[in-house]
This record gives sequence, structure tokens and C-alpha cells, in this order.
Amino acid sequence: MANERTLIKTRVGIVGGGPAGLMLSHLLSHSGIENLVVEMRDHETIRNTHRAGILEAQAVKMLTDSGINGRVLTHGDEHSGIDLRFNGESHPLDFTDLVDATVTLYAQNEVFVDLAAARERDGGDVRYGAEVTAVFDMETDTPKFHFTDAQGQAFEVHCDILVGADGSRSFCRRAIPEDKRENYTVKYPFAWFGILAEAPKSSAELIYANSPHGFALISQRSESVQRMYFQCDPNEDTSSWDDDRIWAELQRRVDGPDGFELKRGRIFDKSVLPFRSFVREPLSHGRLYLVGDAGHTVPPTGAKGLNLAFADVKVLFEAIDSYYSTRGIALLEGYSDTALKRVWKAQNFSYWMTTMLHTPPNADPFQLKRAIGELETVVNSRYGQQYLAESYTGWPHS
Amino acid sequence: MANERTLIKTRVGIVGGGPAGLMLSHLLSHSGIENLVVEMRDHETIRNTHRAGILEAQAVKMLTDSGINGRVLTHGDEHSGIDLRFNGESHPLDFTDLVDATVTLYAQNEVFVDLAAARERDGGDVRYGAEVTAVFDMETDTPKFHFTDAQGQAFEVHCDILVGADGSRSFCRRAIPEDKRENYTVKYPFAWFGILAEAPKSSAELIYANSPHGFALISQRSESVQRMYFQCDPNEDTSSWDDDRIWAELQRRVDGPDGFELKRGRIFDKSVLPFRSFVREPLSHGRLYLVGDAGHTVPPTGAKGLNLAFADVKVLFEAIDSYYSTRGIALLEGYSDTALKRVWKAQNFSYWMTTMLHTPPNADPFQLKRAIGELETVVNSRYGQQYLAESYTGWPHS
Repeated sequence: MANERTLIKTRVGIVGGGPAGLMLSHLLSHSGIENLVVEMRDHETIRNTHRAGILEAQAVKMLTDSGINGRVLTHGDEHSGIDLRFNGESHPLDFTDLVDATVTLYAQNEVFVDLAAARERDGGDVRYGAEVTAVFDMETDTPKFHFTDAQGQAFEVHCDILVGADGSRSFCRRAIPEDKRENYTVKYPFAWFGILAEAPKSSAELIYANSPHGFALISQRSESVQRMYFQCDPNEDTSSWDDDRIWAELQRRVDGPDGFELKRGRIFDKSVLPFRSFVREPLSHGRLYLVGDAGHTVPPTGAKGLNLAFADVKVLFEAIDSYYSTRGIALLEGYSDTALKRVWKAQNFSYWMTTMLHTPPNADPFQLKRAIGELETVVNSRYGQQYLAESYTGWPHS
Repeated sequence: MANERTLIKTRVGIVGGGPAGLMLSHLLSHSGIENLVVEMRDHETIRNTHRAGILEAQAVKMLTDSGINGRVLTHGDEHSGIDLRFNGESHPLDFTDLVDATVTLYAQNEVFVDLAAARERDGGDVRYGAEVTAVFDMETDTPKFHFTDAQGQAFEVHCDILVGADGSRSFCRRAIPEDKRENYTVKYPFAWFGILAEAPKSSAELIYANSPHGFALISQRSESVQRMYFQCDPNEDTSSWDDDRIWAELQRRVDGPDGFELKRGRIFDKSVLPFRSFVREPLSHGRLYLVGDAGHTVPPTGAKGLNLAFADVKVLFEAIDSYYSTRGIALLEGYSDTALKRVWKAQNFSYWMTTMLHTPPNADPFQLKRAIGELETVVNSRYGQQYLAESYTGWPHS
């Protein structure tokens, strides 16, 4: 079998061609560091996977500074605030006023499209539809992996640095020996029911609604397509929800004395989003480095998933760049600790937003009241608003 | 039996002569509103009950503005910050710089001494050592209660307004019919082991320490007497702890690379402080109004207990004053809702500080890491520091 494998030698082997893997590949190539990306899914599948995309200003900067294509600036939708809704009342938070920052709504599949186009334009080596079958020799100076490409051809890749950017079910992560790892997890007794609807915007800004019936998020995709979510059972069956039932459920979660009404339309996409907090420590093993969802998952409430992946990529890129510039390994050795500092801040923020806004089944009545007390504290204090706004729009990259 | 009771008629009957009851009595008398205070314990017992006393600026103002004696200003110790310690490192928060506010350390028994002296000086009617045996007719315009004084004489009190300021095991609260009340509670799997020691100050400011061994609070009482606490089992037996063992336990909770060392001395008081979050809703029933611990208990972490009681007193005093000035009952009817807004903010703050700083037995590893992530977020952000500082030093009175 070994003889049938084609050998590829490269400096950085990247397993996973989602936004994190492609962004790292892009940055490395621009620094003249040879790399290869191997992605299990085909281009079409990733392009059509709808996922939230609320980009921190620094993520937007990464998508424009390094010469990608700037489509995020022309097609993305800059938002300067959110609306916290509880007790049937809206409380706008103006990020520009509070912390002089904004976020940009730009769907994650569009981020992928831009990065994939840039990689193709620049001659990046990205293999889609390629399945990784083994990851090994991570503890050596030449970590290796096997993959079989879309045509069924088998390869063995030798590299200096191996990167696991292969998402929450990461093959790379699972290749790390049991005794070298610690997993931290929260399971939530709810998930999000997400829809895409042909409808006008119901609100200029995202509405995060706490209600006795559970959480709802009213967001926007374009002038004519809207993205909304409501807290549901993790095993909810989308097929038992017709449009009327969905709109009624969403509406009662934003009902209030102000008479706020959602603008309805045909729902053309329904899905249940998994809801989990997860961190793997450390984020490295020998010469294998985990980035993004491969190393940690946040619930969507804080909108931190993609941003955190990009922050990892930035730290890792600088460490790899430093390694090849000076042969110094200090930054690479510090990658896990450095990245984890931000990861735990983001985990905390996501957990905080989640617990403050959701109503778990069989909720403890004290905790429900406390959540309202917490929301009151935040919206009635400029400092509280700033603290939330700063976390939401993103701390400075380290 | 009824014939043996001496009838007392007054406007406001106050059950409980701790700081909350005495403060209300003091304010009412100054407005010319006749009132009577009945307190179960004797003067000496209350005077010698050591309880934390971290006063918000607004509580200090209440102790000085209304002509009590100003001893809080001369004997209290103004503090302009705290130290958040975790991962063995100290992170000072400067309240003056952050939110232009301070707190004052002034033991709760001293607050009692001052208020009791002022009541005595002003001819206030305060009966110590008097046991309340019945509370009734709360739904009428003339609520009533029975008490037996220190000499064994029985009384029946008729009043317009009855106030339950009788602490966490409130007799008044328990007199409210079951179907008219809702209790919200959190039980914590830990308590605080509190000591008083003859020792010099270990630190200029209070240190709130998160450590793998559990929480510790290093506080001060005077130049020569210090108050310290460490998280313990709720059933901890103080007699099994000698001085050496206590100091070793406290020290390992503040150990760090900076070599911080506690200054030791003879320990002359040891006690286990109960730890509970509790809210009764509503805070009124007919003409009975609950203030302070009678209506709600906070864990000591946020230092909100006495401050919250004084905030209740302020709201209730203004409602009663308005009632007698104009005969309007609107403020009295709104007392519970108004007071509860602040109560839930304080409950949230206390719960937040508690969960962020303590290490529960069999702690969830994710939550321990998250707490450190939260502490990092707070100390690395001026907004975070301000948000915490504002809550700690106290929101404006409504």
C-alpha cells in the first residue's frame, strides 16, 4: 500500500479548507511559506452551508488587509449595534457610541467563497473532496498525514508543521493520544431553530430577545432575505414546523407593549443548530496545531465562532512566520497558551450571553429572575453596555 | 388573655431593631412620623455580633446626612479599591479612578451602635429583648402585632403601617399566607470561615482571591485587627481548626509567584457564615412591608447585604413620608416593585462575584476555566473594571 502513495513535501500541511484553513494558507503563501490545504468536502457543499457570519472589525481587516478581494466591504452589512429585548421592551446598544467599533454581517459561506477565490487566483494548493485517513509522527520534526483525493489517488504528506483546521469533528484532534489532552465541555438543554425567509427586514439591528417562551434572535441577511432563530429542543424535528407555526413562535418571543411585529414571508430554509461549549487543551501536540472549531466550539449566542478561528489563525500565522524567519520556535511553543487566553474569554462571553438570554426547560426560577436583573444592570449602566459591546465587537488581537 | 395586653397605637410599627429597622425609625422620627421598634435580641448581643460592613457611599450618606453622629466618617476606613487575585497574581481595581466612587469599611455592629445611640438621644421608642408572638390584620387599614417585652409584659400594637425588618428568619415574613408569596433561593455547596485576628494589615485593600484551593477574602478591621475569610464546607467545625491550620489554609489561597505573604497573629474569633441567595416576592402584603434580610438574603461576596437593606429603607421611608404628607398611597403600593429592581441587580452581582471567585467541591472543570476567562476579561478591560466597580460601589439610589 505504502508504495502506491504519492509523496508530497511541503512546509505547512493544513487539514481543513474552511475559512480558518484557507485564511492561514493565504497568509502563509503571501509570506512565501509553502503550504497545502486538504479539505474533505467539495467546494460546492461548503459554499452552500449557511452559517452565521458576524465579523468583528478585526476579522474584516484580515479579509481585506491581505489582498483578498474586499467583497466583505461592498457586500457585507456594517452594524453599529444590537437590541437587547426583555420584559417585552427593546434596549438598543449603540456600539459606535459605546466603544467606537462595529461588526459586519457577512455570511460564513461568503467568507469561504472569497478566500477560495483568492487561493485559486494566487495559485494556492487546495485539494477539495480529499479525505484524510491518518495523521502521525506529530512528535517528530516531520509530522505526516495520508489523504485520498477526489479521484481516489492516495498521498502521503510530509511537512514541518501540521495544522488541524478541520472543524468541530476534527480528525486531527482525535489523532492526539488520550493521555495528552483535556476536554472541557458544556452541554445545553436547548438548541437553535434557524430559518431563512423571503421577507423584508423586521428591524435595522439584530434583536437578542429574552422571553418567558425562550430566546429568539432576529437577524438580517439582505433587504429581501432574513435569518432568524429561536431556542428549541436539541431534538426538534423541523418538518413538524410549518411557516405559520414558526412565525407564531418567533412572534410571541418578541411580543411586547410596544406592539413590535415581525415582517413575515416564505421560509425556504429550516435547520437545527447544535449548541455546545467545548475546549481542547492544549491546542497543540508536538508539531500539530489546532485552530478554530477543531480546538474549541462556542454556542452561537456570542457570534464568536469564526472570529475566534481567525484570531487563532493570526496567532499561529505569526508564530509560523517567526519560525521560518528566524528559526525561533518560542512563538510556536507559546501558540496554545496565547490562543487559549482569548478562547476562554470568548467561551465566557458566549456562556454569559447564552445563560442571560435563554430560558432552559425546567428553569430554576431564581436564575430566570437573576437573568432579568443582569440585563437590567447592563442596560441601565453605560459601563455595562460598554463591557458587553467591547466583548461583542471583539477584544484587540494579541 | 386579651385583657392582659397593653394596647399601643402608633403610626409605623417596626419589627426588628437591627440597622435597617433603626435607620427607618430614625428617618421617620425626623419627619415627625411616630413609630415603635421591637427587637428580639438585647442591645448587647447585637452590639457584639460581628458582621461584615462594607458601606456604599450612599449608605455612608444615610448615616451622616440625617444627623446620626458621623462616627462612620471618623472611625470608618474609606477604601478606593479592591484587589482581584487569581492565577497567583494581583490585579488592583482603583474605584476612584474607574468610577469616581469609594466604599467605607465600617463594621455592621458599629452601624448598630451609632443608630441605637441616635435613637436613644432623640427619644426613639425601641424595645430590645422583646419577642413578637403574632402578626395579623395585615390586609386591613390597621395591621397589628403582639409582643412580650424583656420584663414579660404583653402588648398589642395597632399601627397604620407594619414593617418587617426582622432579618433572614423573619417572623413577619412567615406570617404572610402561603398562597400570596413566591420564594427564590440558591443554596451553595460552600460557606465562609471567618476569623478575627490580632495582626497588622496584610494588604492596604481588600483582596478577593480565586485559587484552586477555594476562595479567600483578606480584609481589614483596623491597624491591629484583621478580618479574613476562606471558603469552607457549610458544616465545617471551627473547633477543629487551630491558628496554624487556619493561617496555612489562608496562605495557600493567596500564594503566588509574587511571594505575597499574610501577616499572622492570634486568632480570637472563628465562625462559619451561612451562604445563601434568597428573595421573597412580593416584598409587601397588605400593610406589611419587608425590608432588608427579611425580604432577601445575598451571599457576602458582593458585600451588598446592609447596603441593600438601607436602599429598601430609603424607598420605604419616602413612600411612607409621601403617604402621610399627601395621603397618597401610590409609592407604598409601588414599594415592592421598586425595591425588587435593585434587589435583583444586587442578587445578580452577588451571584456573579460568588461563582467567578469560588471553587465548588467537584467543580465542573469547564466552569473553573471559564471563571478565570471571566476574571481575565474584567481585569484586561477598563470597561469590565468599571462595570464591576460601579456595581461594587453601588448604583444610584432610585
